[in-house]
Amino acid sequence: MTAQIPDYDLPETNRQVRLVARPVGTPKASDFEIVSTPVSEPGDGQLLVRNLYLSADPVQRGWAANDAVQKIGDPMRSLAVGVAVKSRVEGIADGDLVYGFFGWQDYAIARRADVLTRIGKPRVSVSSYAGALGMPGVTAWLAFNGLAPPTEGQTVLVSTAAGTVGSIVGQIAARAGARPIGLTGSDDKVAMCKKRFGYAEAFNYKTVDLDEALSSAAPDGLDTFYDNTGGAILDTAIRHMKRYGRIIACGTAATPSWSPPPTGLRNEREILLRALTWSGFVIFDHADRFEEAVERLAELSLDGELQFEEDIDEGMPAVLDALPALFSGANRGKKLVFVGKA
Amino acid sequence: MTAQIPDYDLPETNRQVRLVARPVGTPKASDFEIVSTPVSEPGDGQLLVRNLYLSADPVQRGWAANDAVQKIGDPMRSLAVGVAVKSRVEGIADGDLVYGFFGWQDYAIARRADVLTRIGKPRVSVSSYAGALGMPGVTAWLAFNGLAPPTEGQTVLVSTAAGTVGSIVGQIAARAGARPIGLTGSDDKVAMCKKRFGYAEAFNYKTVDLDEALSSAAPDGLDTFYDNTGGAILDTAIRHMKRYGRIIACGTAATPSWSPPPTGLRNEREILLRALTWSGFVIFDHADRFEEAVERLAELSLDGELQFEEDIDEGMPAVLDALPALFSGANRGKKLVFVGKA
Repeated sequence: MTAQIPDYDLPETNRQVRLVARPVGTPKASDFEIVSTPVSEPGDGQLLVRNLYLSADPVQRGWAANDAVQKIGDPMRSLAVGVAVKSRVEGIADGDLVYGFFGWQDYAIARRADVLTRIGKPRVSVSSYAGALGMPGVTAWLAFNGLAPPTEGQTVLVSTAAGTVGSIVGQIAARAGARPIGLTGSDDKVAMCKKRFGYAEAFNYKTVDLDEALSSAAPDGLDTFYDNTGGAILDTAIRHMKRYGRIIACGTAATPSWSPPPTGLRNEREILLRALTWSGFVIFDHADRFEEAVERLAELSLDGELQFEEDIDEGMPAVLDALPALFSGANRGKKLVFVGKA
Repeated sequence: MTAQIPDYDLPETNRQVRLVARPVGTPKASDFEIVSTPVSEPGDGQLLVRNLYLSADPVQRGWAANDAVQKIGDPMRSLAVGVAVKSRVEGIADGDLVYGFFGWQDYAIARRADVLTRIGKPRVSVSSYAGALGMPGVTAWLAFNGLAPPTEGQTVLVSTAAGTVGSIVGQIAARAGARPIGLTGSDDKVAMCKKRFGYAEAFNYKTVDLDEALSSAAPDGLDTFYDNTGGAILDTAIRHMKRYGRIIACGTAATPSWSPPPTGLRNEREILLRALTWSGFVIFDHADRFEEAVERLAELSLDGELQFEEDIDEGMPAVLDALPALFSGANRGKKLVFVGKA
């Protein structure tokens, strides 16, 4: 089975969305500017990628804040799905679809190490390689299965449950016979969690008393907490963990700035007395298992067993608003911007 | 090799140290009273133990605060080493030395499940079965080897490094070729850590700038933090962990009361970005491996490879001051009270 690559053009200049101010907290549109530059030629061991879908991901907030990762004046570091229009990399042919660190721009000059997935001919929709089959999906798959594999009858709490990571965690848990409980920030997302993403229960953390909701939905406690938020949600959830429970630290969406580090309830006694194991997961440490996970997720998708939502804007200027939308929760699925038509 | 059981008498009444007030924070002498009662006869499946060494341990603070564990008016729950003077338990003979949950009293009626170590004839000094070969030593052995086994060249930070748990963690680390760094609360304990317990470096956390001390003593970061304190020491140490480092939560000595839980720096981002694994360890979950660990520690001790300090008072009234001494750091080694001579 092959999916269609959408029509795209090959403009003569490269529009770049450059970071021009170090963001304070969440990046905003005015921290960026769009600049047109010439298209470069790939050198030996490089490929020229025509980006189709630019990705907006929470991790970019941390990158934008970090001078060692993101220089002011450079195109914003990002993931993207694109076509290798001119490849001088072994194993990647002209015309292959690729997913990797290609930046917010029309064209990227990339090395093999920048490519996370050599897709070749797509088997499922091209945009999904940046979402359910991209960093968020692979994060869900490798973190959950690697750190706290769900089993029959377990109760699993997931924060940002309607996001791409959380929605796939819910489905993995449900497939394993576990009972996923989702936390999200609006009533329509609560409905989507239950209807599409396999959640047995879901709550709008903005409107419920979370302590009471967990007491009621998980009276025997939580086996696993897949945590994409930290903050007050974590402080409440950790006190509902069963003994020997596991917490996966996968994101800190609840905290807009870590400089200086904010304060919160002390949690070390919970870890001790409940004999918990709390582990951090950073997907970029697991590049060697990335393509294997993409394959598994593609199979689930082809079998109709992987539900996901995408929120796709069009045109380079839309990129400026992508991160603000993400952090305000305004997006309705994996946030992407199609830039294949200049 | 057999060690001598010290002389003891068999008084006609049983002095009990009963908890008479729910302690606020650290238990103090006036929370207890000493009462004489008749000596009971063991029923079927029970044994009568003549306690010799009563133990004072940090965990008793938590027990004393918890109505489900410790009733007001009951003898204080504690560990002790004693002699089975009358056994109706299979596998335990009259005259066997035993270690277990015998309470702060002259005599205990115990079941098999209350006995952590059936010692029989002691191979090393009787008091050490309550310290280096007792709960603290076995905790150090099973937690460290189980959760983050030290290996050659690793840097391991240990808090309450001069205590019985910490002193043995230091020695296990040093024997494995790791580099243990100890934190303790006085200059003479710093000296003891380095001279006797295998520590490559040790600091008085009350007088150094801990952040600077760790930057200097572990410029490449910490592989493991064996944490007996939590609190501000933890908040500093976690920011010195290497990526993929491990934290063992084994005690929260720095925090006098958890009701309400105090606040501190948020640490979830450190766990995430450093991809740490932070695990809690409660020794009472590991009763099945207790005697095996005691055997290993006894062998080390007989080989002269296990250094430990004991701080032994005499006479039942001394028990009243044992916990205040422990939490003020006034003790100089495993805190025990010999009560074998009424």
